[in-house]
This record gives sequence, C-alpha cells and structure tokens, in this order.
Amino acid sequence: MFEFNLTATQGCARAGTFTTPHGQLNTPVFAPVGTQATVKTLTPAQLDELGASLILSNTYHLYLRPGDELVREMGGLHAFMQWPGPLLTDSGGYQVFSLAQTRKIDDDGVTFKSHIDGSTHRFTPEKSIQIQENLGADIIMAFDECSDPNDHTYSKIAMERTHHWAERCLTAKTRADQALFGIIQGGVNRDLRTASAQFIASLPFPGIAIGGLSVGETKEEMLSTLDVVTPLLPENKPRYLMGVGTPEDLINGIARGVDIFDCVLPTRLARHNAAFSSEGRLNLMNAAFARDPRPIDETCDCYTCRTFTRAYLRHLIGAKELLAGTLLSIHNLHALIQLVKDIRESIMDNTFYNNVPAWLSQWQGNAERKSYNYTVKD
Amino acid sequence: MFEFNLTATQGCARAGTFTTPHGQLNTPVFAPVGTQATVKTLTPAQLDELGASLILSNTYHLYLRPGDELVREMGGLHAFMQWPGPLLTDSGGYQVFSLAQTRKIDDDGVTFKSHIDGSTHRFTPEKSIQIQENLGADIIMAFDECSDPNDHTYSKIAMERTHHWAERCLTAKTRADQALFGIIQGGVNRDLRTASAQFIASLPFPGIAIGGLSVGETKEEMLSTLDVVTPLLPENKPRYLMGVGTPEDLINGIARGVDIFDCVLPTRLARHNAAFSSEGRLNLMNAAFARDPRPIDETCDCYTCRTFTRAYLRHLIGAKELLAGTLLSIHNLHALIQLVKDIRESIMDNTFYNNVPAWLSQWQGNAERKSYNYTVKD
Repeated sequence: MFEFNLTATQGCARAGTFTTPHGQLNTPVFAPVGTQATVKTLTPAQLDELGASLILSNTYHLYLRPGDELVREMGGLHAFMQWPGPLLTDSGGYQVFSLAQTRKIDDDGVTFKSHIDGSTHRFTPEKSIQIQENLGADIIMAFDECSDPNDHTYSKIAMERTHHWAERCLTAKTRADQALFGIIQGGVNRDLRTASAQFIASLPFPGIAIGGLSVGETKEEMLSTLDVVTPLLPENKPRYLMGVGTPEDLINGIARGVDIFDCVLPTRLARHNAAFSSEGRLNLMNAAFARDPRPIDETCDCYTCRTFTRAYLRHLIGAKELLAGTLLSIHNLHALIQLVKDIRESIMDNTFYNNVPAWLSQWQGNAERKSYNYTVKD
Repeated sequence: MFEFNLTATQGCARAGTFTTPHGQLNTPVFAPVGTQATVKTLTPAQLDELGASLILSNTYHLYLRPGDELVREMGGLHAFMQWPGPLLTDSGGYQVFSLAQTRKIDDDGVTFKSHIDGSTHRFTPEKSIQIQENLGADIIMAFDECSDPNDHTYSKIAMERTHHWAERCLTAKTRADQALFGIIQGGVNRDLRTASAQFIASLPFPGIAIGGLSVGETKEEMLSTLDVVTPLLPENKPRYLMGVGTPEDLINGIARGVDIFDCVLPTRLARHNAAFSSEGRLNLMNAAFARDPRPIDETCDCYTCRTFTRAYLRHLIGAKELLAGTLLSIHNLHALIQLVKDIRESIMDNTFYNNVPAWLSQWQGNAERKSYNYTVKD
C-alpha cells in the first residue's frame, strides 16, 4: 500500500513517488501545515488550486480540540476537514514539549497540562498511536522527545527514550492503511545523530524522519547534521525533515537527500504581512508599495499574483482586512510548493546541482536566519 | 449604456435586466457589501462561485483609505479589487452620519472627523460625485442626508437638503459610463415620503433608491413606507432599497416592487458564527452541533454546504480559525442570492405570490426583528 520508488537521482538529491491510500505523492514535497484541521484561512479548494498535495495536521491540537474520538466518529480527518489527498499527523511530542504547560517526562511517557484549559493529560507512545489511528492520516509519526540540540547529556537521554518509544509505537500500531515513520533525534551532536540514524534505520519503518532540527540551532549546524544523517539512511525509504523550512532550507535539504518537508513559515509570514519573492522577502506594509501596480512576484503564477497588485494587498493590510492573510498564504504556500516542483523537474533533467547556486542566490533574501554558504556537492 | 427592461411582472413584483458597462444584472438582485474594496474574507473567485453579480463598496471608507485618487491611479475600483462585474458605490452620506466623529451639517455639505485618525474632512454633493467618479463604479449614488425616521421636523429638513443635493449631484456628474441614482428620504412619514418620491422621480435619474430605512424603524414602518413610495415610482427605472435586508425583507421588498438590495447582514452574521437556514437561523457554536454530520442547510448547494459538516464548522469556530468566517460568509451570501434568484424565476413563472407565504414561513426564523404579518397583495 505504501510504495516508494525513486524516479531519478542526481548526487544525493532524489525525485520519487510515494503511494498512499489517498493518492500518490511526488517527492520531494512540501506539506502545508493545517494545525487544527485547517490550513489557516484557506479552503481545501484553494489548497488544491495552489498545488498542495500533502497536508500536515497536529495530533496534540486535535486531541485537545475537538478530540480524536470525535474526528473518528465524523469519518476521520480526511472526511472531517475534507482534504481528499494524503494527510500526515505528527506524534504530539513536539507540541507537548513546546506548548503544553508544566510537563513531566518519564521513561513511559509525558504528563502535561493543556495550553487551552490547564487540564491534565498523559501521552505515551501507545496513546499517541491510538490518537493517530483515530485521526486516520496516511502517514503517522512515532512518539519522540525533542531535546535542546546543543545539550549532549539531555540529547542522549531524549534520543534513547525516542528509540524505546519507536519500538513501542511499532508494536502498538494496528492499522494497515497508515504508514508509521520513525524519528531520528540527537540534537546537533554527531555521535548521537549517527547512533540514532543507524538505530531508526534498522527498524521496519516505511519512512524515516529527522526530528529536532529548526529548533534553535544555526543553519550550519542543521546542514552538518543532515550531512551526518542522510548517508546512513536506506535509499528505498522516504526521508522527512520535520518543521523545515525556508526556501533555502528546502534547496539545501533536497541537495542532501531529503524527500518531505513541512513548515508553518508560509502561513505565519502571511499573518505578518510578509511574502516570499524572488527579489527577497517583502513586507507588504512597506509605504513604497502604496501605488505599486506589480504583483508580489512577477515570476509567480499563483492566484494572488495572477490577480492582485501590491497596492491592493497593502490596502487590505492597512484596512485590517482578513483577505490579506488569505491572499498572502496562497502566495507563500504556492511559492514553496512550486520551488520544490521545479527542483523535482531539475533532478529528473539532471540539472539540479547546476541550478543550486542560482536558486540559493534568488531565494536567500527570504531566509529567517543568516544564509548558509552552500557548497555544490555533485 | 444603462438600459432597464422588465422581463416579467406579477402584481408589484418585477423581474428585469439592467445593462451596465461591466455586464448585465438580472433583477431582483442582492448585492454583497465590500466596504473596503473587499467583501470580508472572500476572494472575487469565491464571490463569483457563490453567485454574486453586483458588489457594493463604500465611498466614505475608500475616500479615507486608501484614497479615491489612489484607486483611480490603480485603474479604478474594478481593477483595484479585481471584480469584473458591476459595482455600486454609495454616496458616503450614510457613513458620515453613522460612523464619523463630530459632524457639522449645513445646507452646502457636511464637515466631519475621520473615525480612523480624527482628521477633518468635508463632503459636499460635488465632492461625493468627484470621489465616486474617481472610484469608477457602474452605479453611483446621490449625496443624501439620513434622518431619525420618526422625527418629522428633522426628516423634513433632511429631505429638503437631500432634494437640493440631488440636483447638484446631477449637475456635478461628468462620466457617461456611470449611472447616478437619486435617493428618496423622509423617514417613516407618509407625507414626506410621498413628496420625496414624487420629487426624485421627476428628476432625470436612471434609477431610484429608497434610503433611510432599516435604521431603527419597525418592520411594519419599513413596509408601510414601501407601500407609500413604490406606487409613485416610474415603471421603467430600477428601484434600490438601500441597506436591506434579511431573507424576509427581500421577499417583502420584492413583493412591493423593489429590484435591488444590499446588506452587510450575511457577512456580519458569519463573523458572529450565525448562518441563515431554511430551519431558521443557526448559531454554529451550539453544543448540539458538535457531532452533527449534516451541512448547515440540506437544501443549500453552496460550497460550504456541499463540502462541510456542522461539526467541522463548530470545531473551526471553537478553535478560533478564520476559515469559519469565510465558510459562513459563503453560505449566508449564497443563501440570499439564491433566494432572490428563485424569486426571480417565480415571477417569470407567475407563481411568486403563491409562494410568498411558504417562503416567509420558511425564512422568518432568520429575522432580526419581529416578523411582519404579510398580506398577499396580488
């Protein structure tokens, strides 16, 4: 049911297909984030039009509200949010560590208080799988513990727990129509990442995720970690870099053999009036755009760029009209999805690494952090 | 350029067509309100899909932000907001009287302070026309003064000013590609409404509006006023009842010979989690809907009702997701637009008055105010 095939490779970069019960994903792929069973401000029809194929939703949020049992009763997450294509749910681990109030971790699981009402809850590997089986996404994730990436002692403890929990998740899983991915941890510590990659790769997961990155480390540390991890992974399983990233992160990640990405950045930037563009990131509130008849990006063919001027978008933002967030979300998501599609084409044409310097130079003005000095690896 | 033809009539009710530079309107028609050059939360593509034909935008708001000169520079309101169909702008009068701070009215015009930044501005009939010519809508409105409907003394003064201003607007108008509609005032005073209808009907306006209703009077007073006014209007000009209404207001208005309506109610209700339905108005936050697999209205074929359950909409509202407002706006606007389209069909089939009691009984649960005891007039 979950078949991964490589269509083409160029160096470490891979173009493939991953078959799921809700359709085939062309990889590499960027997944918009629909935290609460909705990609903020967008209808499924708009997501389809902007080119989305895989959507991520958050187990922690849906467990708390509206509840995974309710989602199951309503026919599962696909039916509930009316996304007909592939869905992925995370394990809830990252949100427990980053959002929940007062958490207590032990080797069996995590007790935490809801950020919504302070009520007490407990996640274990078995509970995370049970919730994710109720939600019913195509790809589900093993329950893991994300550490401070530079704290070696804590990273080792968290990694070992993550490994034990990975085995418990494999045992707990019952649904054949869901692919359970294992997660590699270890912070930015080379020895731990090596051990974690080898351990997770040795288990019978149909896909492997790299967790615990984009959580405060530098770009250099993130990419060095990928350089350690991806060579240790089997060729025949998809690789998912969780919570990443910016346009340049996608280019750099694909160059290191990553197949799947997700990130809240495009929709979060949209809510802060910012747009990706091939001229660098734009803040649409800039007074210079008041009478600018151009689209956000003249090279973009999304609905927003085909239809509206910078002047109109700036007006909507100034007038606090919610349509601004919708239109910027459409553009930002389309920009990343189209970039990844273009990269996939270039891998199949064997031109990816030739294009990398130009792509990085075009997109690095969109970086959140200092740009990484990329070295062509082909 | 602006041709109004009656396709069919049944009693006072009329089905017609009104030709504008941006396409033909089938009347009766309900116009969604796009106050700040956007119908809140909706793209033009969504407005088109839900069946909108005429959109209203507000002169007062656009004059203050982003400024009518800027809109003109950007190619006019159609190009700016990318609505390819007919547009209507009001005169700014109603907003000056209802929104602006400290206003001072004299026979020449109104001086007021912006509700945004307190800056001082002055509207006269000539200024209103100049702004509306910069905006460039297909239908523009004469500058008028809206009175307390039950205050006969003030209503008479406001009506007389409105009449003088109507003549000045006709003189000030320069663009041949815009239809200037006159506005009847007079509150709920039979003598004033009679005088105003006769005076405005005597001027060379291609369309006639009934202003100053839905501003605090009772339903009975509103409909009695229509009963006084519409018989005095020429058959061959479209009649526009401004700022109305609820589903039953549309039914009752069309039964009295009104052709055009606009109202913020559908989008405002959407922002308050309420939906029109043939079972009466629904509050989607109702706990009873938590596991309700039905659409808002099983008889509705809008995108929201074709796609989503009440349970999902309730979840979006509970999770404070903006998509809820978008989906409820789509439904509420579609509901009114479809109701008016169905009424138009029934006028052409000569079955409208037979259907009125059933329609009123179906929709009166959606009323904001006490339901009016309608009497069939055919």
